[in-house]
Amino acid sequence: MSKKIIIVGGVAGGASAAARLRRLDDQAEIVLLERGPDISFANCGLPYHIGGEIRRRRQLILKTPADLQRRFGLDIRTRHEARAIDRHARTVTIRDYAEQRDYEEHYDYIVLAPGAAPVRPPLPGIDHPRIHTLRNLADTDAIKRSLADDARTALVVGGGFIGLELVENFRRRDLDVTLVERLPQVMPPFDSEMTTPLLDELHRNQVTVHLGTSVERFDDRDGRIVATLDSGAQVAADLVALTVGVLPDSGLAQAAGLDVDPQGRIIVDSHMRSSDPHIYAVGDAVLVRDAVLPGSTWIPLAGPANRQGRIAADNIAGRDATYRGSQGTSIVRVFERTAAATGVAEKTLAQRGVPYHKIYLMPGHHVGYYPGAEPILVKLLFAPEDGQVLGAQIVGAAGVDKRIDLFALAVQMRLTVHDLAEAELAYAPPFGAAKDPVNFAGFIAGNLLAGDVEFVYPEQLDDNATQRWTLLDVRDETELLTQRYPGALWIPLPKLRERYQEIPVDKPVVTLCATGHRSYYACRMLKQRGYQALSLAGGLYLHHCVTRSDETACPICSQTPNSPS
Amino acid sequence: MSKKIIIVGGVAGGASAAARLRRLDDQAEIVLLERGPDISFANCGLPYHIGGEIRRRRQLILKTPADLQRRFGLDIRTRHEARAIDRHARTVTIRDYAEQRDYEEHYDYIVLAPGAAPVRPPLPGIDHPRIHTLRNLADTDAIKRSLADDARTALVVGGGFIGLELVENFRRRDLDVTLVERLPQVMPPFDSEMTTPLLDELHRNQVTVHLGTSVERFDDRDGRIVATLDSGAQVAADLVALTVGVLPDSGLAQAAGLDVDPQGRIIVDSHMRSSDPHIYAVGDAVLVRDAVLPGSTWIPLAGPANRQGRIAADNIAGRDATYRGSQGTSIVRVFERTAAATGVAEKTLAQRGVPYHKIYLMPGHHVGYYPGAEPILVKLLFAPEDGQVLGAQIVGAAGVDKRIDLFALAVQMRLTVHDLAEAELAYAPPFGAAKDPVNFAGFIAGNLLAGDVEFVYPEQLDDNATQRWTLLDVRDETELLTQRYPGALWIPLPKLRERYQEIPVDKPVVTLCATGHRSYYACRMLKQRGYQALSLAGGLYLHHCVTRSDETACPICSQTPNSPS
Repeated sequence: MSKKIIIVGGVAGGASAAARLRRLDDQAEIVLLERGPDISFANCGLPYHIGGEIRRRRQLILKTPADLQRRFGLDIRTRHEARAIDRHARTVTIRDYAEQRDYEEHYDYIVLAPGAAPVRPPLPGIDHPRIHTLRNLADTDAIKRSLADDARTALVVGGGFIGLELVENFRRRDLDVTLVERLPQVMPPFDSEMTTPLLDELHRNQVTVHLGTSVERFDDRDGRIVATLDSGAQVAADLVALTVGVLPDSGLAQAAGLDVDPQGRIIVDSHMRSSDPHIYAVGDAVLVRDAVLPGSTWIPLAGPANRQGRIAADNIAGRDATYRGSQGTSIVRVFERTAAATGVAEKTLAQRGVPYHKIYLMPGHHVGYYPGAEPILVKLLFAPEDGQVLGAQIVGAAGVDKRIDLFALAVQMRLTVHDLAEAELAYAPPFGAAKDPVNFAGFIAGNLLAGDVEFVYPEQLDDNATQRWTLLDVRDETELLTQRYPGALWIPLPKLRERYQEIPVDKPVVTLCATGHRSYYACRMLKQRGYQALSLAGGLYLHHCVTRSDETACPICSQTPNSPS
Repeated sequence: MSKKIIIVGGVAGGASAAARLRRLDDQAEIVLLERGPDISFANCGLPYHIGGEIRRRRQLILKTPADLQRRFGLDIRTRHEARAIDRHARTVTIRDYAEQRDYEEHYDYIVLAPGAAPVRPPLPGIDHPRIHTLRNLADTDAIKRSLADDARTALVVGGGFIGLELVENFRRRDLDVTLVERLPQVMPPFDSEMTTPLLDELHRNQVTVHLGTSVERFDDRDGRIVATLDSGAQVAADLVALTVGVLPDSGLAQAAGLDVDPQGRIIVDSHMRSSDPHIYAVGDAVLVRDAVLPGSTWIPLAGPANRQGRIAADNIAGRDATYRGSQGTSIVRVFERTAAATGVAEKTLAQRGVPYHKIYLMPGHHVGYYPGAEPILVKLLFAPEDGQVLGAQIVGAAGVDKRIDLFALAVQMRLTVHDLAEAELAYAPPFGAAKDPVNFAGFIAGNLLAGDVEFVYPEQLDDNATQRWTLLDVRDETELLTQRYPGALWIPLPKLRERYQEIPVDKPVVTLCATGHRSYYACRMLKQRGYQALSLAGGLYLHHCVTRSDETACPICSQTPNSPS
């Protein structure tokens, strides 16, 4: 007898589960329920349709119900919502919105793929028709209608992935854009210093950014919205996009008595099975294994959702498939910059008390002698004991996606920094370097583990720095013209061999340069001459990213084409 | 007492060894001998300077002798050649070309980094002054001089990496270009079918290509060169570039009695140490461990040379560093196409009798709904037993470098196709897809290993195909207009569920579509209805690449913007 599977939710995880199930079991009865009018739409593409880069709305619809019905013999029911599950009787009560009626369906298995819903905080004035969230095509249509009504200004509340993508796309449509973010940084999953180049990019694109402040209320003033911030400032806008996070859409699961955590995220085992063996759950509503640290994590992203859907299908079809966990590999383009992350952030490691080392580097994304090389700022986090890669973050103008994927694979497969050093990657001048940034990251991390170098980090350079250390600037003379670190001694690297005896021996020496490359050489030289020498990690560029002082402008932030090494 | 190290050869491996040695041992005496006038130049950039993309010659000089001398305290001697090694006395006899004298230096260690020299076959007329090889800046200058002398036409002999890069750069300078390659394909390290898109790209760029033929002689005709091919054809050119391979420049090593293989490649252990423990050897003259198959391999590439130099330095400095082996990760840009490879090619696996599976796919390099998606053709080779990734090749217009690096890391770390399937990679619409091509490669390979699909490969579709199999084309009607496979039955995939009974049951069915994606769905459906069904791997596009028949044009070859899936 054929199985009957009801899939609740027809986007990433649900659609993947349905298609895979059909391929594995052509006899199964597969019912796909979707509350909205569309299934399998490109939710990650919505901001780009708002900005006009994706021109046609129908490009966002990857598969129509008719497509899927014909191609896979799926029973697709849009505008049908699963309202309740009777786990004892194994039935689902379904609301048919078109016919305005409820009915029941028996199931052998359910796959819950309800996703996550945008948070809409209960602020005064929040129900203004021009205050939007963005989850689906209907939301997209609503935002586009607001834009068409002669909007000139937009306020984006929340500076995460979707917020920044909307900022970019509103600017693309020539709106004046203001961004408000509660935290003192954009892109909350990232470590703060890695977001400075994005902040500078927002400024360069005339975006007004308010960090560390929240909206307290919205008021209507002649059809426009005025947002009052907790700083007291007011921002007027024709249109507001609220992108302050999402919450698991797990009401159905909770009502059915499935195990959820205190935040309402559905608990599943490694087979993506909920606490009821006949009910699987996948995607943005689900708590999964943390791929790096012990315990669970909640990472609502499209890639994991798709793979989880596939795994649930495999298990329902009688195979033994397990999900390895999520690690938060993600990427965002912000105008001409790209930021990407994988694995655990430093702030999480610190908070969890996990021992870690960190290194920074700022190589070109390909060899400097080939035109168009752009610096990328790389942060690598790894275990002090064995060099296991724990996480990485990168920001730059080009080549960011390629390197983050390599770090992502390293994190997932528990590779070490030594493996990165030895990676044999493809090199021709337009694509990289004989020693790729990924190799360099491995070299530097290996040097730290071997004790060949010790770092001082920019956040340690406080007002007492010159009392604790002799700061030694080893850059060339021309570089001093634009920026100089106060109180630092200056001996250019090429002169250091002959002049090192000018350096006082009473204090440890911290060497510094633009990116941390030459300061490492200087450090090695001084250490072998009896000095206690440390290198300023990431150089003065990273110092700028940490302090956001204009003293030391970063080449990624300031569009200087090439980083000196 | 400080060590004295003599490094023979000052480009990739030698320069890396010198710089690393200095960082590890500031007291060591490091003498760098370079026969030519330049050290540490960008040999991979030479073709791009000839084409003008790298405008200034000095951009190719990464470090001048003076730079290195000042910065690292190295004793750099250009135009000095090591002529003999007395291993017993531990001395090197050195020729100083400027002073026209020989002298001796004692050593504690030698690092041999002599590189490889372009082959110059002993053909009649080979010494014509406008017949060039390309190894260094002097060769580059000579080619540029030939170009400046009003050259209109160029002949490139040899269609490997450097040959194709020169073809592109000569075209960039508006020369008429002819390419002659002895083998029936360009890019000899690649499997033949993966080079068809490059061949089509050469044609699209008005390059005349002669495959499977060699030059027999060169004659001078009024200052121009006339090459006579073994086919009898003649090609006249103002300039010839010979890029028919390189040979290890191991004369010094051989004369010193170091172990070499019959092809003259220096034999080293995993520490990069030659048969004399005081002599290390790195780079293009050295035989190294094969990173994938048992035994040794010779892979003259810049990345391995650089890492080997570093490893030799570590060992000389008293550390224990081992080289993991080379796997031939490489990439070439040919006009608007890029081809890349890593690990073992199918032809090598076949020749060595290593069991393997292969799969093909042709996804977009990012999601299709975001503008600019370009198809990439991916070939993945893996072990039938456990799915270990053995090799991969990719050709396409964009995103090739990123995926080959992921496959390269997989090959090196002995990951399996299941690891590829589960890789959590960075996704936003401009950068990839929720299921990246690398994930898809893992899915398809996993399907093959699980027995969910069996493939027929285009090379198996001979004239008797329709006798052995029922060929079933499942594409849409519009696609049949431009190309049709002779003798194939046609049922579009969406109709297959209702019409499958039209398919005869007397023979196995081979399903086919454009790229192998829909044919897989059809296969799954038919298998579950009792048919013995197989899917045409890579679809009709791969069929074109294998047969080079114009019947089934490939979207990579024909610039069709998007592959139907």
